[in-house]
Amino acid sequence: MFVNHTITALTSMIAHLVVPIPLLATLDPENSPIVLSGVLLSLVVIYLASKLGAEAARNFNFPPVLGELVAGVIVGVSALHLIVFPEGGLSASDSGIMSVLQSINHLSPVALTSIFESQSEVISVLAELGVIILLFEIGLESDIRQLKEVGVQAVVVACVGVAVPFAAGTAGLMMLFHTPAIPAIFAGAALTATSIGITSKVLSELGQLKSKEGQIIVGAAVIDDVLGIIVLAVVASLAKTGEIDVVNAIYLIVSATAFLLGSILLGGIFNKTFSAVVDTLKTRGNIVIPAFIFAFFMAFLGNAIHLEAILGAFAAGLVLDESDARNELDELVKPIADIIVPIFFVTVGARADLGVLNPAVPDNRAGLLIAAFLIVVAIIGKLVTGWVVFGQPGINRLAIGVGMIPRGEVGLVFAGIGSASGVLDKPLEVSIIIMVIITTFLAPPFLRIAFGDSVEPPATEESSKVI
Amino acid sequence: MFVNHTITALTSMIAHLVVPIPLLATLDPENSPIVLSGVLLSLVVIYLASKLGAEAARNFNFPPVLGELVAGVIVGVSALHLIVFPEGGLSASDSGIMSVLQSINHLSPVALTSIFESQSEVISVLAELGVIILLFEIGLESDIRQLKEVGVQAVVVACVGVAVPFAAGTAGLMMLFHTPAIPAIFAGAALTATSIGITSKVLSELGQLKSKEGQIIVGAAVIDDVLGIIVLAVVASLAKTGEIDVVNAIYLIVSATAFLLGSILLGGIFNKTFSAVVDTLKTRGNIVIPAFIFAFFMAFLGNAIHLEAILGAFAAGLVLDESDARNELDELVKPIADIIVPIFFVTVGARADLGVLNPAVPDNRAGLLIAAFLIVVAIIGKLVTGWVVFGQPGINRLAIGVGMIPRGEVGLVFAGIGSASGVLDKPLEVSIIIMVIITTFLAPPFLRIAFGDSVEPPATEESSKVI
Repeated sequence: MFVNHTITALTSMIAHLVVPIPLLATLDPENSPIVLSGVLLSLVVIYLASKLGAEAARNFNFPPVLGELVAGVIVGVSALHLIVFPEGGLSASDSGIMSVLQSINHLSPVALTSIFESQSEVISVLAELGVIILLFEIGLESDIRQLKEVGVQAVVVACVGVAVPFAAGTAGLMMLFHTPAIPAIFAGAALTATSIGITSKVLSELGQLKSKEGQIIVGAAVIDDVLGIIVLAVVASLAKTGEIDVVNAIYLIVSATAFLLGSILLGGIFNKTFSAVVDTLKTRGNIVIPAFIFAFFMAFLGNAIHLEAILGAFAAGLVLDESDARNELDELVKPIADIIVPIFFVTVGARADLGVLNPAVPDNRAGLLIAAFLIVVAIIGKLVTGWVVFGQPGINRLAIGVGMIPRGEVGLVFAGIGSASGVLDKPLEVSIIIMVIITTFLAPPFLRIAFGDSVEPPATEESSKVI
Repeated sequence: MFVNHTITALTSMIAHLVVPIPLLATLDPENSPIVLSGVLLSLVVIYLASKLGAEAARNFNFPPVLGELVAGVIVGVSALHLIVFPEGGLSASDSGIMSVLQSINHLSPVALTSIFESQSEVISVLAELGVIILLFEIGLESDIRQLKEVGVQAVVVACVGVAVPFAAGTAGLMMLFHTPAIPAIFAGAALTATSIGITSKVLSELGQLKSKEGQIIVGAAVIDDVLGIIVLAVVASLAKTGEIDVVNAIYLIVSATAFLLGSILLGGIFNKTFSAVVDTLKTRGNIVIPAFIFAFFMAFLGNAIHLEAILGAFAAGLVLDESDARNELDELVKPIADIIVPIFFVTVGARADLGVLNPAVPDNRAGLLIAAFLIVVAIIGKLVTGWVVFGQPGINRLAIGVGMIPRGEVGLVFAGIGSASGVLDKPLEVSIIIMVIITTFLAPPFLRIAFGDSVEPPATEESSKVI
């Protein structure tokens, strides 16, 4: 009996263990056309959403990217459930696209899970390649000379824009909401980093990327991103060990500075090499392939030294902007950006769970109060940065402050890590997510208003069109 | 003792079973930047290989795509092991790129496996999107009126090119090598389908895509692909149940015909809608996004009705070739194709394991003999198709026959399914793989020679360049 029991118990354990194994079915060649089907259908939905959203936003005189974000929310986890990701407890049965595949192919639940995960992984990486190519394009559109000119301003804006929301957020949470120190520091840190992707896309759409204000915002957003990563590393180690990892913080500061300055300095030499290489190549893709080799390699480097891939891509764009092939390259990168960048914005919207705004859920109610406080700090803390700019008479200070407002994906990374490490309780996590959603969605229309007088709508429309 | 033994055995089984489970680590957010790093580094290697290969091939007066295939072999499983896939028993430790990531990030073996699989999945899907976009571009470059003109010729070429190698291959294997009937039929079937991707790319590079020969080859290759899928479905059911699934075969024939003819007929209506939609859109990507929505949706449909995604993309290209926005679309699709199509060709090369050519391995020795026979049948069986073309005086019959030679990925699918279902023994599987490799690599230079007199090298070079 005992033997039988043991064997039965073990067999049932095995059966239990066996269930997740067919995840190896990822490799099952029979499933690979279905993964492809899922990716194709997801891309069709993403493209449809992005175009409908962008056109609708434009008709209401909002920046198109806001429409893409909102369209993403509609097709995403908050509404239609077409584009969802296996996070926050969602499974294949929550995905509209998976239901379609299921009804066509009659898949087992296990195969469906495996296909859902593979497809989500592919769409996630495509979205990341999208923001990498966006930042590469922004780098190409930026003017390195003008960036150098406003460099000091950008550094000041970035530092104030990190210090003020961090200090005000942490202190406010501790005093007003009696949050313990470490969670308060973590939430304060989540208020620091500007979303360079959203801000720069809106600037580009408004035709303001090359303006003095635009270049200060982009420069400050880049520095902000670096500062945000350093702050994250510091508070994460503080949360994990209770101590600040000074060595790692110094490593990040040094490597980020060396990476950005080094790539710009070396760029002066490299863009000559690039032009020479392009001239010797005779087969198709002679300009665009070397450019992408450089951009992706720099993005890899940025990732490898624990900075961000988008910083590498931005630096690559800045460098190639100096090369002779610049104008041709601009034209070639546009259609590539047009088909891959929307994947990023739509999935940002699709991942934003507006369910956290529902006051019927108790955790949300506590979160909504804290969120209201964080949003005020997030907006005012960045708005003030416009007024620390000096020596630039007649500059649009409001526009600079507004440009720094959107927190986007960086804030979500904070919330995710804070929640995974147990530092943030549910209400605080929810409030950070709400803060990110609100600042992200408010910034594009605000930026449009802040630039109001100086923007010529018809010219903008034309210049932002491909043709 | 018995109990202990049983438990030990079961525990070891569990331990064995447990190992793959942390594949769920795919979802670990900490790993996602490393997956991105892996994808970026893979793309850098793929682009470098494709450009070096294409330029070297061009210098030796070969079609650039041959260079991309060979470069793929060099970076792939046969040589440098930089781009490898988790198939044929390969694991993360066999991948050069994984070793780089490992040395940077100090990953656990389990995390490494999970990252390797995610990265391979992403690169595989990118390669599939590459061939989808290639066929979309080929569809755009093809002339539907000329295709209709040579339609009958293409059907005849395709049918002869399927029947002759199939009959000769099956009969030869049974008579010369005493292979049993079912494996012989399977191997014969693997000789049928032409690789439309490789052939059409070479034609495009030679500037021969719009020639009468080029259009016959492309038309025949498309029909061939459909016939190949039907043959595969029939022999696969024969292998599995010993009977021919007539209903499924009829379903495939009807759905394939309906799909291709239907999309072309409806296309006449749709391309008006497309032009109207493009005209009303005002935001970036106004041409390219609707075009890709249509192409990816058609590719999805092709996949969903168990045909192939590339057939849908080709049909989409044919339809949009009739629209007013055609010329602009051609220009916009080029750079997109330039960065994604090479991923397909380099990975085709990278997956080709030239180790099967090593005569030191006993299985290979038996395979090499059969392979030699299959290669002869594969080449002659397609060469004869040029001479069945009627009513086209002065046509280059050799070029048509040569254009049908490459088997590419379709043959590998046969080998894979045959081997997985146990129908093919090792020597026969190896011989099919060798046949596919040799026909794929021979076709581009042969096609160059076959078109020899009518090709003007300098003009070709210029016309095949983007700028």
